Amino acid sequence: MRLDPNAAVVLLSGGQDSTTCLVWAKARFARVAAVTIDYGQRHRVELECAAIIARLAGVEHAVIPCDSFRALGGNALTGDESVAAGVRSDSELPNTFVPGRNLVFLTLAAAWGWTRGMSELVTGVCQTDYSGYPDCRADTMAVLQQALRLGMDAAFTIHTPLMHLSKAGSVLLLRDLGGLDLLTHSHTCYNGGRPPCGTCPACVLRARGFAEAGIADPLLRS
Amino acid sequence: MRLDPNAAVVLLSGGQDSTTCLVWAKARFARVAAVTIDYGQRHRVELECAAIIARLAGVEHAVIPCDSFRALGGNALTGDESVAAGVRSDSELPNTFVPGRNLVFLTLAAAWGWTRGMSELVTGVCQTDYSGYPDCRADTMAVLQQALRLGMDAAFTIHTPLMHLSKAGSVLLLRDLGGLDLLTHSHTCYNGGRPPCGTCPACVLRARGFAEAGIADPLLRS
Repeated sequence: MRLDPNAAVVLLSGGQDSTTCLVWAKARFARVAAVTIDYGQRHRVELECAAIIARLAGVEHAVIPCDSFRALGGNALTGDESVAAGVRSDSELPNTFVPGRNLVFLTLAAAWGWTRGMSELVTGVCQTDYSGYPDCRADTMAVLQQALRLGMDAAFTIHTPLMHLSKAGSVLLLRDLGGLDLLTHSHTCYNGGRPPCGTCPACVLRARGFAEAGIADPLLRS
Repeated sequence: MRLDPNAAVVLLSGGQDSTTCLVWAKARFARVAAVTIDYGQRHRVELECAAIIARLAGVEHAVIPCDSFRALGGNALTGDESVAAGVRSDSELPNTFVPGRNLVFLTLAAAWGWTRGMSELVTGVCQTDYSGYPDCRADTMAVLQQALRLGMDAAFTIHTPLMHLSKAGSVLLLRDLGGLDLLTHSHTCYNGGRPPCGTCPACVLRARGFAEAGIADPLLRS
């Protein structure tokens, strides 16, 4: 299957990192589209943020449903409907790790790209992120890329522009690309707050990145 | 994450090949469970067959929903709700190829196994099958296995006992394992018929396998 290497699919969650990836992709590829996976996010505001950001960025936006992980978490593990399940008490992984999620989301983005003739996949996974998710590491992405290539008989490439950046580095990258204003519409807060709560781990991490970059977060200016 | 290498998850569709895999796994592993993906099968009888076969085989059976491919096919391609979409006219792939489907299904089976501490994954993909799906080939499975290992930080192994068998070879394998009777409850017919139509490509292929093996199909005896 021949795909267009100038056409990129960006996995857009509506958060800071994937928004940065969208702007990065727009600067690099002739054709860009955004794909958001609707996996039953607790905070539906994330889906709205993704739609707004894609619209403001002027790219096509598709939402792909995926009800699998909610079922895996709820039935197999906790009896809770939370997608933050997938937790085993003997695991050394963070208790927010959902096994297979990034692998499936990227495969779905690739499948969507395949149907549109788009070979470039962009995701905001980050190895330097302290969370230590095994499906965010560069070696995992390299092997997954090969699995997607063989499994769909197409020359996919997975791009991870944030892989080795700090949070401050991501902020500076987005500023240099002229995309900071889009973050006015991004969502980060674990508690779903708009304006963000400012105290949850995600808010604290985001604030630290902006502080280290010496830049004001447009989300807080708005 | 340490998983049990004597515990296997079998992807069970309710068809002949996956039923054979289930019996193969039971002969090989101390603990076996079956996972069926509910992707919106046109013929819901397949899900019933899978449940009956798992019960008769005496193994735990889980159904994992996956609404993604129905949406990918319906919205992105044909405007039709058919799961047989994912078709591009310039592709040399069979028009029943759904990009990414096997990759996602195996990843979901692995994720389910991860939550249960089970590392062995068994699937009925077959390279000698004339259909030529790229996600059924041995090289794809080898790389996917590596992606699952890295992505979930666990020593998964993908087993493909039918990979190099003919349809007749699969029939003989199942006979040798003493599991032929389970095929009374398996589903193959593309038209969803019970008894099967006998004329669709799937029925014809199944009949040829049994004929070449010199064995009567228990589904037709029933």
